[in-house]
Amino acid sequence: MITHPSFPGEPWVVRETALDLGVLAQSESVFALSNGHIGLRANLDEGEPHTLPGTYLNSVYELRPLPYAEAGYGYPSVGQTVINVTNGKLIRLLVEDEPFDVRYGRLRGHERVLDLRAGVLRRSCEWTSPSRRTVQVRSTRLVSFVYRSIAAIAYEVRAVDAPVQVVLQSELVANEQLPHMSGDPRAAAVLEAPLEPEQSGHRDNRVVLIHRVRRSGLRVGAGMDHVVDGPAELGTGLTCDPNLGRYTVTSRLQPGETLRLVKFLAYGWSSQRSLPSVEAQVEAALTAARANGWPGLLAAQRDYLDDFWNRADVELDGDDEIQQAVRFALFHVLQASARAERRPIPAKGLTGTGYDGHAFWDSETFVLPVLTYTAPEAAGDALRWRHMLVPAAQERAAQLGLAGAAFPWRTISGMECSGYWPAGTAGFHINADIADAVIRQEWATQDDELARECGVELVVQTARLWMSLGATDPDGRFHIDGVTGPDEYSALSDNNVYTNLMAQRNLRGAADLSERYPEPAEALSVTKEEIAAWRAAADAVVVPFDERLRVHPQAERFTAYAPWDFKNTPPDKYPLLLHYPYFQLYRTQVVKQADLVLALHLRGDAFDVEQKRRDFDYYEGITVRDSSLSACTQAVIAAEVGHLGLAYDYLAETALMDLADLNNNTRDGVHIASLAGAWLAVVAGLGGMRDQGELLSFAPHLAGPLTRMCFAMTWRGRRLRVETDPTTTTYSLIAGPPMQLLHNGEPLTVSEREPVSRPVREVPDLPRPKQPPGRAPRRRRDMPV
Amino acid sequence: MITHPSFPGEPWVVRETALDLGVLAQSESVFALSNGHIGLRANLDEGEPHTLPGTYLNSVYELRPLPYAEAGYGYPSVGQTVINVTNGKLIRLLVEDEPFDVRYGRLRGHERVLDLRAGVLRRSCEWTSPSRRTVQVRSTRLVSFVYRSIAAIAYEVRAVDAPVQVVLQSELVANEQLPHMSGDPRAAAVLEAPLEPEQSGHRDNRVVLIHRVRRSGLRVGAGMDHVVDGPAELGTGLTCDPNLGRYTVTSRLQPGETLRLVKFLAYGWSSQRSLPSVEAQVEAALTAARANGWPGLLAAQRDYLDDFWNRADVELDGDDEIQQAVRFALFHVLQASARAERRPIPAKGLTGTGYDGHAFWDSETFVLPVLTYTAPEAAGDALRWRHMLVPAAQERAAQLGLAGAAFPWRTISGMECSGYWPAGTAGFHINADIADAVIRQEWATQDDELARECGVELVVQTARLWMSLGATDPDGRFHIDGVTGPDEYSALSDNNVYTNLMAQRNLRGAADLSERYPEPAEALSVTKEEIAAWRAAADAVVVPFDERLRVHPQAERFTAYAPWDFKNTPPDKYPLLLHYPYFQLYRTQVVKQADLVLALHLRGDAFDVEQKRRDFDYYEGITVRDSSLSACTQAVIAAEVGHLGLAYDYLAETALMDLADLNNNTRDGVHIASLAGAWLAVVAGLGGMRDQGELLSFAPHLAGPLTRMCFAMTWRGRRLRVETDPTTTTYSLIAGPPMQLLHNGEPLTVSEREPVSRPVREVPDLPRPKQPPGRAPRRRRDMPV
Repeated sequence: MITHPSFPGEPWVVRETALDLGVLAQSESVFALSNGHIGLRANLDEGEPHTLPGTYLNSVYELRPLPYAEAGYGYPSVGQTVINVTNGKLIRLLVEDEPFDVRYGRLRGHERVLDLRAGVLRRSCEWTSPSRRTVQVRSTRLVSFVYRSIAAIAYEVRAVDAPVQVVLQSELVANEQLPHMSGDPRAAAVLEAPLEPEQSGHRDNRVVLIHRVRRSGLRVGAGMDHVVDGPAELGTGLTCDPNLGRYTVTSRLQPGETLRLVKFLAYGWSSQRSLPSVEAQVEAALTAARANGWPGLLAAQRDYLDDFWNRADVELDGDDEIQQAVRFALFHVLQASARAERRPIPAKGLTGTGYDGHAFWDSETFVLPVLTYTAPEAAGDALRWRHMLVPAAQERAAQLGLAGAAFPWRTISGMECSGYWPAGTAGFHINADIADAVIRQEWATQDDELARECGVELVVQTARLWMSLGATDPDGRFHIDGVTGPDEYSALSDNNVYTNLMAQRNLRGAADLSERYPEPAEALSVTKEEIAAWRAAADAVVVPFDERLRVHPQAERFTAYAPWDFKNTPPDKYPLLLHYPYFQLYRTQVVKQADLVLALHLRGDAFDVEQKRRDFDYYEGITVRDSSLSACTQAVIAAEVGHLGLAYDYLAETALMDLADLNNNTRDGVHIASLAGAWLAVVAGLGGMRDQGELLSFAPHLAGPLTRMCFAMTWRGRRLRVETDPTTTTYSLIAGPPMQLLHNGEPLTVSEREPVSRPVREVPDLPRPKQPPGRAPRRRRDMPV
Repeated sequence: MITHPSFPGEPWVVRETALDLGVLAQSESVFALSNGHIGLRANLDEGEPHTLPGTYLNSVYELRPLPYAEAGYGYPSVGQTVINVTNGKLIRLLVEDEPFDVRYGRLRGHERVLDLRAGVLRRSCEWTSPSRRTVQVRSTRLVSFVYRSIAAIAYEVRAVDAPVQVVLQSELVANEQLPHMSGDPRAAAVLEAPLEPEQSGHRDNRVVLIHRVRRSGLRVGAGMDHVVDGPAELGTGLTCDPNLGRYTVTSRLQPGETLRLVKFLAYGWSSQRSLPSVEAQVEAALTAARANGWPGLLAAQRDYLDDFWNRADVELDGDDEIQQAVRFALFHVLQASARAERRPIPAKGLTGTGYDGHAFWDSETFVLPVLTYTAPEAAGDALRWRHMLVPAAQERAAQLGLAGAAFPWRTISGMECSGYWPAGTAGFHINADIADAVIRQEWATQDDELARECGVELVVQTARLWMSLGATDPDGRFHIDGVTGPDEYSALSDNNVYTNLMAQRNLRGAADLSERYPEPAEALSVTKEEIAAWRAAADAVVVPFDERLRVHPQAERFTAYAPWDFKNTPPDKYPLLLHYPYFQLYRTQVVKQADLVLALHLRGDAFDVEQKRRDFDYYEGITVRDSSLSACTQAVIAAEVGHLGLAYDYLAETALMDLADLNNNTRDGVHIASLAGAWLAVVAGLGGMRDQGELLSFAPHLAGPLTRMCFAMTWRGRRLRVETDPTTTTYSLIAGPPMQLLHNGEPLTVSEREPVSRPVREVPDLPRPKQPPGRAPRRRRDMPV
């Protein structure tokens, strides 16, 4: 956990004021740059020290064996793992032949700034070498949102108090040595040097290396080009071998003189295209980068982000820390998705190798609901990616003896990569989660083209899956047994409420969209009878209820299970899964993450508020949040049922997940879904935004120290702004035709000319529910410094 | 499956009248010899052809990694695998320099006979070499029941029609090349040549090789000695290197002359003892073997078996095939356990490497109930072995956060070797199964010493486990959630009836034995309060019941699950687990093996007969018997509820499991539990023997073609004989003081002087229940020849 105040609460930047090697790993993730296509971990320019060197390309992976002590039918035998591709970030500096390394000599200052509006990472430091020469180093790094294949670095070194001889070595390195990453020696062996050289070439200031990933066969091209600016006496050189390109600049700097190197990077990859084609793509990108030049890239980046923040900014007056954290969160969500295009949004984006670089249900359940309202094209592209997986998902369903499509629990390119089926394949809710994202996107964007192209098929194939997963009992009830819901401390449960209600939404959505888009539905052989069957099953879905406690068990018998022995669970035993067997977790009342409470959010239409309050209170007492996919949902429902202080604390936890490294694993990459959850905690939580009815609805209320909250969002082509102060909410339509919405359940119409103001709702004074001992929401400022 | 009539139905031998290389693998298992300490697969004397060369020593194993694609807390990372130790079975024959190999030249006859009374495997054949010299070869092999470290082979070669030069090479070979056995290349590598030479020595006609198993560190000594008898002109030689000892005899035989070699084998092993100690043990055993000589070993073997058959024989008049199969079954049960002493009885005995040589719950649930009444000392020794595992089981319980002892699902020396916890660790019923065996043994033998030494601790530590596994709900009911019962097509169920009722028996047994043996109980800190708590929990155990169907669901909600789609499950999809995911099996009404029906047997006291009939009929329709641990239990309950024809067919299936290779895996070793089940199917099934009340009780009835059934058993030091013809059962006490027993519920007393006869019971005429399509009981003679 990061407990010191590394990052002062500035609204538009995240600033690290000193270099602390103890949290280097976390900073590599927090300051990682990405556009969803290329990801660069924030490794120091000079390469070392590092904890995990990382350059990632979305969907460039290696295959590796998935071993089992006892294998079973349908277990995937091969998995996919994101790999560290050719590293172009490296710029080594030698000062009078001494390598610049922050661990030696004397570092007189070191600052890094992630600029959320400029979209760059800036670094500046002053360093005195062991032989007492002092230089200032400044670098600025960007991964372009506008040109998805391009990254660039501007690197400057300045002599301070004496003339110095400096050498810059700008490198492009394949198969970097990595720290040991896997417990499985075979997997480690596979991933050790996954890139097989195919071609290397250099001319002028440019190097292009082409490799193939050994087992997956993917072809990866990486190139670098350079522009140098400095004192007249410059020496340059270029060398290249299959795994290493090196551009060298030598100069003698007088005090005050600066040597400046702009390094352009370009990447291309393909599973199909030829070597010349990939090489040409890289060359073209480098040429485009040079043509734009560093100022051109910077300006385009700024324009892109200005537009994004105009559409999506969240303003929170009264709490600088959370203001910063929420913007940081949105920035990373954008980085993970902006140019992912028809590729996945992995759980860690492209900021680290956590979860092998896989995408999960988080993508549809936590990230897409944000993108649908802030970057709808990115949401659409993510659904297009899912749609590309339909054939693999149909194959998987057939393998499992099921109808329709069964999407993988975790994957990069579509194959199931989960090696533990009770928390993998059995998590069938991912299919309803995908349908939910489709239904939301269609409802919120009215993007008919997307619906016709992908949406209808996604909801139809998943509806078919549910029809084969569920069964009708002699009493006519539709039950779904033996599945795993969101809570990973339960598994193989019967009639998981979340799963059943989401399946219901899936079935009804399939019926609705098939009727609304008859052509693609007919192409899928959907008949009236099938639609009727979906609706009938949806109407008959079982939702278990515990009459004695008057709460919903998250699945059959859940509330009859033994309580977890929280009293004898010391703080160092969390996360529980590292200290207790699944066996014990599954059969007791302990909840890793919102499950029934997530149903209260995403299927809020199925519960009245009094029931939500009872259910929320019950699950608060047994939810330990060992997953980062929980605090945001708890924030949303806490706010709805009236626990505003608690909602605010959960907002803080979800937003600070990575800035404060609350789960002690930010080193592996940032938690994209938790960060998306920061937006949900504000907009759906404090803002009360819901999207399950006819109209977009709100029920805003400030919380915590906030004096004002304002967020912008996109809905059916309109841009809406919702501003709330302690007494009043004002709805303003920034662009688009007039729209109706609900404020605390009351319909109102807002148009460009006429903002509408309404009083904020009354919130009852409720006793704050208790979490398990030691599991109350956390935030950095609570922590000892 | 073996479908041809290889084995004519002879009452005391199993005879193979021709060598069929297509079933060589099965014959290697079926004709394997063992005494529970040493096991020799029935590989041909000359070594090749073979499918799996096998020489096993009980508990000599190698460690191997257990890999996981996604590991979890408490997963064992290292497993144990039985290994092929130094092979002393080899006797190669060269006829005029041509090696005797049944695949070349011409085999004029080949017969092997497993003699169940003599306890030897005899082989005789006549072979004409490619260069047309004809010899007769006869060999007899035994593994001594009396001298547990000794095996021996008498080998004869006789010239038939012309003088021949013959050479015999008798070998002792370590690290034989084995066929590829594991899907995991790392495991295969570990197991490839596991024996590291420590010492090799030879003198006279004797060779002793000492090895260490590389990772487990076990020290294994193997020795051979020879006595030769033949024409005057004999040449002999002896060579030895670290992995190979070879004794060579050369002779020229005139037609009708015979060269005879007796080979003595001795094995010793230890995890602790020094090399000289192990070597001395082997030398001593060889000396003892020579001193006894071949006739002495044969005679001792015969005496041992005469005694066994006197105590344990089952006579079935009217069905030669089943008569033979049941004796064969008992013989293998004896072979697996007779001299296992404080070592496990593995699922395959020492006849093959199936299940890695592990012991499971089968041992206590299917094998010990036979041994308790036929070889009670062997049953006691098996419980002593379990008792040696208590410390490891306590450690495992602590690791899982449980009290008492949690015995491993599968193991050789005590460590949990299961790599799939939902069907391993979660199968906690094994602990109650062990307690059940203890309770039965104490009840049936009144062996106080065993109870004091082991029994009390076994039931107390397992009772403590159940107290921590179960929980009392607000209504005061004791429930046990999230465990796996015997049926491996279900997992992680709540209130599995079998588990709950066996836990109840365990808790009550712990209370009873603690009161009966206060000293060992006090040593375990058992208090009156603890005993009272056990009794209270036992009384409060939940037994779910489906009021609508009026049957017991095998666990909560089981009868609400969707039916399995038997109609669309073709015969080639069995066993289901190879063709369908666990996910589907677990959540549907399909049963791999008796589970609720096993509760009807082992806790028959908890059900009335009408309920048993309803339950049995219900489960017949959904039980597929993809496990060999099912037919015997179905036989027992079918007989009890009145389906005698069906009971007989299940008896046939369990008895013929290996002789007919019904499950197509006899190649990996015989099914010791299924074979033990043949005795259960006769004695508890047709004989109606029950042992859960105060008195031993019977309710015999003939079935199928039987005209007479007679079995002997031991009870509290007495020898009882129960003989049934179509109308009458006669109880005779062969030895011991008078005893009371129940016949069809009626108490009677039998003494040595007075056999008692009673009429057999009336059996109602019931419609035969249906099994799933294609899953009716099988037997060889139904099969196409």
